[in-house]
Amino acid sequence: MDERYIIQKYFAPLAKNDESLNLKDDVSQIDITSHRNLITNQDSLVMGTHFFPDDNPECIAKKAIRVNVSDIISKGVIPYGYFLSFGINSNINENWVRSFTNGLIQDQKYYNLKLLGGDTIFSPNVVFISINMISLSNDKIISRSTAMIDDDIYVTGTIGDSAIGLHILKEKITKIKLSDLNRNTLINRYYLPEPNIKYSELIHRFATSAMDTTDGLLNDLKNLSIRSRKDFSINLDRIPYSDATREFLIQFDDYDIANFGGDDYQCIFSAKKADRKLISDFALEQNIQVTKIGGVLQESINPIVSDQNNNLIGSSNFTFKHF
Amino acid sequence: MDERYIIQKYFAPLAKNDESLNLKDDVSQIDITSHRNLITNQDSLVMGTHFFPDDNPECIAKKAIRVNVSDIISKGVIPYGYFLSFGINSNINENWVRSFTNGLIQDQKYYNLKLLGGDTIFSPNVVFISINMISLSNDKIISRSTAMIDDDIYVTGTIGDSAIGLHILKEKITKIKLSDLNRNTLINRYYLPEPNIKYSELIHRFATSAMDTTDGLLNDLKNLSIRSRKDFSINLDRIPYSDATREFLIQFDDYDIANFGGDDYQCIFSAKKADRKLISDFALEQNIQVTKIGGVLQESINPIVSDQNNNLIGSSNFTFKHF
Repeated sequence: MDERYIIQKYFAPLAKNDESLNLKDDVSQIDITSHRNLITNQDSLVMGTHFFPDDNPECIAKKAIRVNVSDIISKGVIPYGYFLSFGINSNINENWVRSFTNGLIQDQKYYNLKLLGGDTIFSPNVVFISINMISLSNDKIISRSTAMIDDDIYVTGTIGDSAIGLHILKEKITKIKLSDLNRNTLINRYYLPEPNIKYSELIHRFATSAMDTTDGLLNDLKNLSIRSRKDFSINLDRIPYSDATREFLIQFDDYDIANFGGDDYQCIFSAKKADRKLISDFALEQNIQVTKIGGVLQESINPIVSDQNNNLIGSSNFTFKHF
Repeated sequence: MDERYIIQKYFAPLAKNDESLNLKDDVSQIDITSHRNLITNQDSLVMGTHFFPDDNPECIAKKAIRVNVSDIISKGVIPYGYFLSFGINSNINENWVRSFTNGLIQDQKYYNLKLLGGDTIFSPNVVFISINMISLSNDKIISRSTAMIDDDIYVTGTIGDSAIGLHILKEKITKIKLSDLNRNTLINRYYLPEPNIKYSELIHRFATSAMDTTDGLLNDLKNLSIRSRKDFSINLDRIPYSDATREFLIQFDDYDIANFGGDDYQCIFSAKKADRKLISDFALEQNIQVTKIGGVLQESINPIVSDQNNNLIGSSNFTFKHF
């Protein structure tokens, strides 16, 4: 397998569109006359940091796409397509590439994406996947810095599944009893985040500020509060957990693993109190889970996030660090 | 040094523009209302394949930018800005990052580029740099597939310097005598290609088809002939060499090292015969080297490139393969 072989056999069929020039040139060309804004996100996955040699290549491909999709939809816009830099080493055989490509194909369909271009290079010691994902929109993104005093704060989906899944994989926990179903649910959520394209519309319509959750819910909320220069109050009892995470937490007895654990790829956002009813109606209508977990307090030069008892929310050893 | 430290201290100062949101969000937002086309190129450099641990980080940064600039200008458009994925391992210290950043700063000025976004990640065993470079234009790109029968074929700059520079570095040649000046010129050209932004205007005005030369001039000409589905005739005696390369070739006695060697980052293009005078006037006026090296012959299903004696131009062991 050389570069051309991989591109022609595996990637060109994913890029059958005029804009990629069918990968027959080194550049791509996209007609942007009918759009006002180009929104871009670039995120990479590296073997040994974000995935491991034995992981399922189909999942790796999807995760590489989804960490980027998550950023785009958390800004209230829709992903359009992506550029892929694929660094492979000699341990990667054709079956791996085939499976990886299948993951890309499935998620291109699922998220309605085009492969627009990229490059494939030999990387002696490590495999990496760097994706640049674009959105073309007439709308502007929802910023992190525009939460307003008295807004509500919401989170989508459930929190902690992925961090607990990774913990189960790494620690080989035996003390905690989980049903096979719940155990698999948690591990699968670590391997494969599930950013929901419907969140984009939710955020576009209602959010005054927004971001996705990757570094642990409470860390990300701190980040949002700092960017918006406002104190936040979060009711920790309202944080939404899946049944699987709940079964784990009841036994594990330290909720920090969920609240600070990271890799959730959900959205947090602030919204006007006046929109409460509209938001819950929208969630019901779209069949998505959206939970009000707190509110925006006063302006602050050194913003803090506190809990329902006015205790400062600090940091946790469960915060997942890639470095 | 963690991710945030590097981004805030080194990359944020390079991205002081509204579009990058000062790297304070995960996405970038670019107003594209006044442009018709988004042209994009994504090329990566990997330690062990494209550069080595002892190479000058400033040069690595510039090379990462320039391999992308080269692709963009060879299409007749101008680069606007770039997204950087930076994978670093624990062997990379702060001096390395500082020097790397200096290279980026210098080339941002030289090519009038903005850093628009990206990510910094820990990569256990290898350093990589993946750049997505964009151009915003009201013009369309010059394709590889549109060379016309009877067109002239041109190349910019000189050929072979980089390949010979690499050969000197790797083989530690003693038989061939070169002046220190020429030896350094060749080695420097390997470390640092010099795509000239003026080529963009040349190609935009005159080229009927175009691409940059990365895989060896004669290989790239074959590629252009195949994409355009036309036979080419190339006069090998016309291929332009620098004084340094000429001094080397006279002794080395195998011109394939220059003609097939690769990493030139020059432009090849076809143009109408009627434009000969205009092209040479433009070259003179802009102080750039443009050399007519051949012509486009008839349509062909299996296009070939032949030399001035009608001999088929084959392949060469000097063709540089990254895989």
